[in-house]
Amino acid sequence: MITEQREISGSLAAIEFWFEFGSSYSYLSVMRIEQAAAKLGVTIRWRPFLLGPIFKSFGWTTSPFVTQTWKTAYVWRDMERECRKYGLAWTRPTTFPRTALLPARVALIGADKPWMGDYCRRIMQLNFAADRDIDSAVSVNEVLAQMGLRAQEIIDEALDDANKLRLRSQTELAKTKGIFGAPTFFVGEEMFWGNDRLDDALAYCQAAIDHSVG
Amino acid sequence: MITEQREISGSLAAIEFWFEFGSSYSYLSVMRIEQAAAKLGVTIRWRPFLLGPIFKSFGWTTSPFVTQTWKTAYVWRDMERECRKYGLAWTRPTTFPRTALLPARVALIGADKPWMGDYCRRIMQLNFAADRDIDSAVSVNEVLAQMGLRAQEIIDEALDDANKLRLRSQTELAKTKGIFGAPTFFVGEEMFWGNDRLDDALAYCQAAIDHSVG
Repeated sequence: MITEQREISGSLAAIEFWFEFGSSYSYLSVMRIEQAAAKLGVTIRWRPFLLGPIFKSFGWTTSPFVTQTWKTAYVWRDMERECRKYGLAWTRPTTFPRTALLPARVALIGADKPWMGDYCRRIMQLNFAADRDIDSAVSVNEVLAQMGLRAQEIIDEALDDANKLRLRSQTELAKTKGIFGAPTFFVGEEMFWGNDRLDDALAYCQAAIDHSVG
Repeated sequence: MITEQREISGSLAAIEFWFEFGSSYSYLSVMRIEQAAAKLGVTIRWRPFLLGPIFKSFGWTTSPFVTQTWKTAYVWRDMERECRKYGLAWTRPTTFPRTALLPARVALIGADKPWMGDYCRRIMQLNFAADRDIDSAVSVNEVLAQMGLRAQEIIDEALDDANKLRLRSQTELAKTKGIFGAPTFFVGEEMFWGNDRLDDALAYCQAAIDHSVG
């Protein structure tokens, strides 16, 4: 009985975290999700994907923050305030959105590794705090090496055809699941969009745990 | 000196609340702003306006929740969850977005009256809890009469040419201020977009008060 309850609880106590390294609001969630989830005993299932193909399927060529010019100034001001609220460093990227193909491919390798959270935060900080290009072997190598990992081995694995295909499949899955932006969270079938809903998604997880235990 | 401080504090302790009766996320803010602002000693400056002409200026013919079909199911599910979170009644409107010209014209009359908050909540509840048409003399008359007000007098004043012009000017002003959606809040020059930012906007007000008093 107890085992069964634990299994139910284990399955409900997970949050799927769909994010993209080029996305500004994904930066906020990447920086805070591990600490917030740990507090509630929630497991994170990291789901790096690419927003570009999703936007393309809507007929968009880039981020709506760029094309909806009436919104552009506001979203940058909002990011500045949000970073202050969460105590995060912030520099408006001189290139936006930055492509992040290699970082995403490496993140697929890291998704089940203990270094995933740290890796994602470092890549995000390069983009949104240091205003540096992230889609290069130099940047990714530097990050992995700073973490004491075998950088070249990981990058080689990330550039393997099988892994490239995995990223395409993951992005296709995002489309199938109805994801239209990032970050997006899933708790079971329940979808939550945007950093503003991270706490709601975690609370939803928490309620599921309480229910299965009680 | 004390007088001067109070004046500064008075001016900073106000939040401009730009909203539209057809807007679902405006519903959330209309229902909770008076209580939230009162707790912090913040004054509300009610700014009813029309979203239609704003959207038209972007080349849009209706709400993006309608045209961006990939987002439609999500936003309704989100509204359902948000209403549960705030303890608000919720019925998905069978017509969306509902036009709300007369309610907005009456709201202009009410903006400085003590009945404004109650009036706005009742109109919003007709739209988003009772799923009823709101842009009719019958609906507006019913609401005002239930509040014990001289309904016909107020409606006549709302339909006066000068008041019609005022609503057009107010909507023009929204455009000039860079408003692109509803609800939107201003604290001084600082703009906050969306019900998700209401608490941040109020906190910004609060910090301004503390600063001017301290």
